[in-house]
Amino acid sequence: MLTVYSDTYYMQQALAEAQKAYEAGEVPVGAVVVCDNRIIARAHNQTEQLTDVTAHAEMLALTAAANYLGSKYLTDCSLFVTLEPCVMCAGALSWAQLGRIVYGASDEKRGFMLHGKQLLHPKTRLELGILEDECAQLLKQFFKSRR
Amino acid sequence: MLTVYSDTYYMQQALAEAQKAYEAGEVPVGAVVVCDNRIIARAHNQTEQLTDVTAHAEMLALTAAANYLGSKYLTDCSLFVTLEPCVMCAGALSWAQLGRIVYGASDEKRGFMLHGKQLLHPKTRLELGILEDECAQLLKQFFKSRR
Repeated sequence: MLTVYSDTYYMQQALAEAQKAYEAGEVPVGAVVVCDNRIIARAHNQTEQLTDVTAHAEMLALTAAANYLGSKYLTDCSLFVTLEPCVMCAGALSWAQLGRIVYGASDEKRGFMLHGKQLLHPKTRLELGILEDECAQLLKQFFKSRR
Repeated sequence: MLTVYSDTYYMQQALAEAQKAYEAGEVPVGAVVVCDNRIIARAHNQTEQLTDVTAHAEMLALTAAANYLGSKYLTDCSLFVTLEPCVMCAGALSWAQLGRIVYGASDEKRGFMLHGKQLLHPKTRLELGILEDECAQLLKQFFKSRR
């Protein structure tokens, strides 16, 4: 059955955000936050535009989602992000008690999984590899264009 | 010799920020960023006021310092914070490549040192225990008043 409420659909939306980052000359990472099958926040990496290392897609999406819901905690939400979160973002996702985190490509150098899943909240479900090739390809293309 | 350019002085300034958080009903943590012996950013925890788990003192201070300097990287700066940073903040401090981090009280439950110093940038110097008792006392007083 075809449904828009699929992990693939939401990751495509995160990829569309990553594409915006790419076009702005930012490392192309995008994220969306989903609650009750609705996208309540969309964001992409803006570290260069904002001159701020904390402006990762996940951080901006978290802040926007909390603002939308009027709650610091996102226990009933899922975050879809094109790249494995870094330590900073994993820490933020832990504080926000995300219900579920889904990421596309792995980040072997800076990903939080280097330090293990215990960086996340114990109740957070974790999935990975959704649209992995597309997510990784966009990053590869970006870094290749920068060389 | 008495000098204002001492770690104790800067930690007192971070404590003054923590006191502001206390008075606003926030977990009392404060931070200052110092560059060339000047305080270029001051911040305190605002997670409740902003309904945002990412609004830790260190994160707000980092963003403000980067904005002031016009640079994402704070290699020539020191951060003074009253409490051991959490994983999120350690990750952010790593991205910002802080020259030096000085914290007051330890945080045995949520502090980044649970995962080791490798969460920080390899070039960051780390010191701890400056005004430890005062920093810890303010936190104890806060949590006691909340019971």
